Order: sequence, then C-alpha cells, then structure tokens
Amino acid sequence: MNSLTELSDNETNYFASFEDVEAAARRLEGIAVRTPLLEAPLLNEELGYRLMVKAEPLQRTGSFKFRGAYNTISQFDETARKAGVVAFSSGNHAQGVAAASSMLGVPAIIVMPSDAPAIKVANTRAWGANVVLYDRYKENREEIGARIAADSGAILVKPYDNPGVIAGQGTVGLEVVEQCSEVGVTPDAVVIPCGGGGLSSGVTLVLSRLSPATDIWTAEPDGWDDTALSLAAGERISVDGTVKTICDSLLPNAPGELTFPILRDMAKGGLAVSDAAVKRAMAVAFRHFKLVVEPGGAAALAAVLDDKIDCRGKTVVCICSGGNTDPALYADILREQSA
Amino acid sequence: MNSLTELSDNETNYFASFEDVEAAARRLEGIAVRTPLLEAPLLNEELGYRLMVKAEPLQRTGSFKFRGAYNTISQFDETARKAGVVAFSSGNHAQGVAAASSMLGVPAIIVMPSDAPAIKVANTRAWGANVVLYDRYKENREEIGARIAADSGAILVKPYDNPGVIAGQGTVGLEVVEQCSEVGVTPDAVVIPCGGGGLSSGVTLVLSRLSPATDIWTAEPDGWDDTALSLAAGERISVDGTVKTICDSLLPNAPGELTFPILRDMAKGGLAVSDAAVKRAMAVAFRHFKLVVEPGGAAALAAVLDDKIDCRGKTVVCICSGGNTDPALYADILREQSA
Repeated sequence: MNSLTELSDNETNYFASFEDVEAAARRLEGIAVRTPLLEAPLLNEELGYRLMVKAEPLQRTGSFKFRGAYNTISQFDETARKAGVVAFSSGNHAQGVAAASSMLGVPAIIVMPSDAPAIKVANTRAWGANVVLYDRYKENREEIGARIAADSGAILVKPYDNPGVIAGQGTVGLEVVEQCSEVGVTPDAVVIPCGGGGLSSGVTLVLSRLSPATDIWTAEPDGWDDTALSLAAGERISVDGTVKTICDSLLPNAPGELTFPILRDMAKGGLAVSDAAVKRAMAVAFRHFKLVVEPGGAAALAAVLDDKIDCRGKTVVCICSGGNTDPALYADILREQSA
Repeated sequence: MNSLTELSDNETNYFASFEDVEAAARRLEGIAVRTPLLEAPLLNEELGYRLMVKAEPLQRTGSFKFRGAYNTISQFDETARKAGVVAFSSGNHAQGVAAASSMLGVPAIIVMPSDAPAIKVANTRAWGANVVLYDRYKENREEIGARIAADSGAILVKPYDNPGVIAGQGTVGLEVVEQCSEVGVTPDAVVIPCGGGGLSSGVTLVLSRLSPATDIWTAEPDGWDDTALSLAAGERISVDGTVKTICDSLLPNAPGELTFPILRDMAKGGLAVSDAAVKRAMAVAFRHFKLVVEPGGAAALAAVLDDKIDCRGKTVVCICSGGNTDPALYADILREQSA
C-alpha cells in the first residue's frame, strides 16, 4: 500500500456541499425513483436489531449511479450538451451516464473493461451509448477516457471525483433521513458500499448535517479496503488490488481525491467483507427483502450481517447500491446458500 | 366444470365499495408499504409498449395479503380481538393474517396445507401464529377452519370472500392510480393475478371509479382459469383443479361469491398462462426489475409478456402480487432461462 499526494485546494470546502445535494434532489424529483427503505420484522427478531435496507437496485438502470450522472449532465450548457460526454466505468456508472445522456439528448461514449458483466455492456449499448472496450490488465481507463475527451471535445464525467456526481449520489442519504423520520427513527448507523466513495461521501454530507448522531461506515471487499485503511491512517492510501473478489463494482484501489476528505472528517470508519459474507447477504436480500442485489451492492449488508460492527439493540440502515448481476451467478449463490 | 349457485343478496351492492377501499387506505397509512410502480425503459423499447410493474413482493410479509388482513382485523372490537382469528390459506394470506394479528395483539390460528412451501409455514409460525396443518387431497380447509372457529370462538377471516379483505386489497389499486397520475399516464390496461379474486375485485372497485377507461384483466394458471371461464359465461363456474401448476398461490377452483359480481360487471375478461410463461416472467422480473416474484405473483406479467392481450403502443400495468418462493426453485428457473 502507498500513500497518495493530496489536492492543494482547501479541503474543508469539500468541493460538494449539503446544499448541492439539496439542489440535486430538486433536479431528480420525478426523474429518479424514490426507492423504498425496506424492513423485514422476522429478520429483525432473528438478528436482535432493527435492520433497514435502502433498495437502490430499484433505481433507474438498476443502481444509484443514475442519480449522480443525471445531476451532472443536466447542468451542462447547450455547447457542452452538443459536445457530449465520455465516461469510464466497470458498468453501473456506464449505464447511469448512458441513460441520463439518452434522456437529456446528449451523445455518450463509454469506456468499459472488456471483461465487464455482459448484461452491463449490453444495457449500456441499448441506451444508445457508443461503447469502447479496453483490457483492464494492460490499459489504463483514465488515460483512454482523457484521450477520447481531448480528441472529441466530449466532457469527461468521472465516476466519483466529480462534485455533481457526489451531490447526486447524496440524494440517497436525503431519502434515507426522510424515510427514517416517517417511521419515527434516527438510525444509529448507516453502512454504505464503497468503491471510489461517490455514494458514501454524498450520503455523509447529508447525514453529518441532518443526523449528526448517526455513525457512518463504508464497506469494501477484503483486499480492496483502501478506504478503510485510509480512514484509519487519516490519509489516502492505495492497495495493490490483486485479491480476487466477486464485487466487480467496488474495484477502485484508492479513495477519490474529492471524496476522501469528506469521509476522513465525518465517517466513523471502514469495514471489509469476504466473498462468503457477500453471498450470504445476497441470499438474505433475496429471501427477506425480495430484492436482487449485485455482489458489490450487498457489501454493506454483508458487513452488518457478518457482525463487523456491534448492532445489538440498534437501528441500522444498509444501503444496497445496485442489482445488475448475471442471473446464472445469482442462481449458483442461491443454490449454495439454500443447500 | 360446473356452475355454482349465487348468493341471494342484491349483488349490485357488491358487499365492498370504493369508499370502503378509501377507508382501508386510511387504516393502512404508515402501516403497509406504499410499494413502488417500477419501469424498465430498455424493456419497454424491446416490447414496443410501456410496461409498469406494481411491486407487491416488497409489501410487509412479501405479498399484498397483509393489506386485507390488517384492514379486517384492525376493525375488530375488543371482544373480537380477545377471541382471536382463524384463517385457512396456502401461505400468503396466512402470513398476512399472522403478521397483522401480531401487530394488533390478536391471537391467530392458521390452517395450512401440509405441502405448502416450507418458507411460508416457517414464516407464519415465526409471526407467533398457531399453525394447524391438513392434507389438502383428503381434507377440506374450509370445514377445518369453520370447525376451529365454532370450537374456539375465534373469528374466521376468509382469504377473499370478506368485504374487509376486498377493500384492503383494493388499496393496491388506489396506489396504482396515484402513481400513474404522478407520471402523467392513464393505463390502457391493468392485469391482476387471480386466485379467489380478492385482489382483482378490490382493484376493480377503484379503477372502475377513478380510471373507467382502463381495461381490467385477471390472470390465472392454465387449468385453474375458473375466473376467465366465469367471466365469459357471466356466471360462476368451477374447474376440477387437477392440472399441475407451479402457481401455488392461485389454486382456488372457483371465483368467490363476493368477488365475482364485481369482476363480472366491470372486468374486461380473464387470461390463462402456462408454467413456461410464468418462468419466463420470473426471469424478466429478476433481470429488469430486480424483483423476486413467486410463480403465482408473476401470472399477470406472464400473460402480458406472452401476448395474451394486444399491448402494442399502449401503457399496461401488471400487478406482481407476491414474492414468497423457495430460493432453490428460483435458482432452477434462472438457470433454465439464462441457458
């Protein structure tokens, strides 16, 4: 692991603010799905705590990524809309950008790894985006994205290190706070799947303002726990990213430059989960919440069900961030877990 | 098939009214989940029509049945609450009654077939209900239920032939109308899974009042299409009910006495679906809507995807009524459908 150099800007401004999340919520009203916050009382009884699941697999394009993409692209001026967008993504950001671009009439080029799940590539193409595949073991997607942006004039929409994206993802947190308040609870903890930190930092901006007593935790796959290590160290640390994991949507190997300062100052800490725990969580989501959750999307639920924090007697919200997974993989997991 | 004698009451009163559904909605506010009405734009493009899915698997207890049970039991007076309830059910009504009783502090006895899916029996017990199993090939559940009611003084809550139940299920229809109006559409058709007709008749009371231009269709398994036959004949007809089907939640072999007059006067007709079409629909629900739907709960979606009505260019709502199914069965279906 290595520590990374920091941006020189004054980080206490955080590049995105609570007010930016509120503005994003206004842009997304009637456009994004207000996904339900689900409960399973029988499971609560088994667990000995109150578990609430924010169901982002039900979001447009099957993950929270649509929120940040739409919030960003909808703020483009006429010239930018004509120039189009370019994005690099292992899948969910790709679909979010492709869908938002299509709704807003903006052309999109998406750079995807050639081994991304077939369903994610197919869906991105179906949204009308021009998909460019690359080899993620040999090529660097950021360089390819930057080159395409330079050549075509298209605007690069980064998956997490982008204030508009952070603010858009933060609307998940606004809904969690509203939905908890509708049933009269203040969550003791909110646990959030974390790749580059767009979702977790956006949600953190909201919780630290509206629900300061709530502990905020990130959840990452074992061996890809750069955010957990960075939070413990107080500075951005990268991991080598060689450990195999089924969580294909959580593979950034370092926290974002814009996202990390937010988490560093306001999150409680980071958790890491095994593939086995993720599979159990996917089976629980299926059985108790009737929800299809992809491996990376189940990381927070996995951390909680695997007792990575002490939840006894508490109220805990797990964000399930996406549901784009190959049915055959889910079938194998269901078979395994019900055997 | 046989025609059945009719109740002598004036059926145009329908035993339950639109106003009863409105009252049920007030009782259920903040208690039942307002389940989302989901869309998958890429699927719409493939299909050539706009498909909306009402996601009742996300309801408390995993099906719409909670609505009718809670609406009925919450109206009991103090004496009735002490006497308790008895219900017979292949599973989802059982869980609905058990959960509602538990929330309202009313003791419950549930009569279930000994071959009901294990998860449904286990969940009913976990809600604190006393489960009595019977052999559905040799014994009659209505007689057992009536005997227990007579012996114990408990009040029988029938699964569909009960005005409070019909009104409670009708709240699904109120939400569909509201949610369609939020996105500015009037559905051309609403298709509803149908066993005894509690859900479909309740929803019909709402649509015929608030959305009279919408065609209402029921969906049943092949060989269990008593409602379709009855609607065509204009009178209640029973089927022998010997055809095998995976739709374990849609097995009544005749329309209800209270539910049928509503459907007869206001529904467009009845559709019947094969197990193969149901399995395809379950895979589509999983892939495009990230939703776990049980076989019977997918009957309406199966009818539409199997082109049982002409949907081209239209807006069609399918109610997915429940998601309580064995994970191993779903795994087999996902494997089959993705092969």
